[in-house]
Amino acid sequence: MASIFTKIIAREIPAYIIAENDLFIAFLDVFPLMEGHVLVVPKNEVDKLYELPHEVMGSILQFAAPICKAIEKAVECKRIGMAVIGLEVPHAHLHLVPLHHDANDINFTRPKLSVSKEQLETMQKSILQYL
Amino acid sequence: MASIFTKIIAREIPAYIIAENDLFIAFLDVFPLMEGHVLVVPKNEVDKLYELPHEVMGSILQFAAPICKAIEKAVECKRIGMAVIGLEVPHAHLHLVPLHHDANDINFTRPKLSVSKEQLETMQKSILQYL
Repeated sequence: MASIFTKIIAREIPAYIIAENDLFIAFLDVFPLMEGHVLVVPKNEVDKLYELPHEVMGSILQFAAPICKAIEKAVECKRIGMAVIGLEVPHAHLHLVPLHHDANDINFTRPKLSVSKEQLETMQKSILQYL
Repeated sequence: MASIFTKIIAREIPAYIIAENDLFIAFLDVFPLMEGHVLVVPKNEVDKLYELPHEVMGSILQFAAPICKAIEKAVECKRIGMAVIGLEVPHAHLHLVPLHHDANDINFTRPKLSVSKEQLETMQKSILQYL
């Protein structure tokens, strides 16, 4: 069965898309740890990030870097943290999370924020203007 | 002033080195979140990972992937988690952390493990045999 991310890629599920190319898609996490939390997902549906084909693995951070810089401009923060965990959705993905205070900002055991459709739309626009 | 990681690269500070090439070095974190926690450090001393030169950014995960697979063999775990936080040492680095249970395994607000020199030596040998 296609993962929830593959359904987003196929436009079967809507998402607040930030960037896309032949290999990857990036969209807002609708259950963010911090506002501006973005997921970067390879279109190649593999479980573990380090099982991606060599060339795809080579370009995921190149794809993510300008997004990090755009989030930094859209959200006032110290820097963008990154995490790959993958215990929930078996489709490799990279989290980009604005860090404001300390490592607790990217602590995945914390309850997620509750954000409205309007907040997500505003954040999407805000990030997109810097891309 | 050279970062602690640059001093490790220059062999001014000893480390339990796992792998090295022209661009990167990987060694055991001596204050691990989980046993088998490895740091991957670009030799290029930049603060933020997403500020690395395009080519270097392209090869860090290619360098890290076989290390992830070796840690997975050395340490029984579900998978290897990855994190880039960077609020402490201003020299970009990627954490590779074996995940046994859940996201708390890669929660950087947890107290670090206390491991002996002997445990680190054993872990280094164990990972190296799979590389």
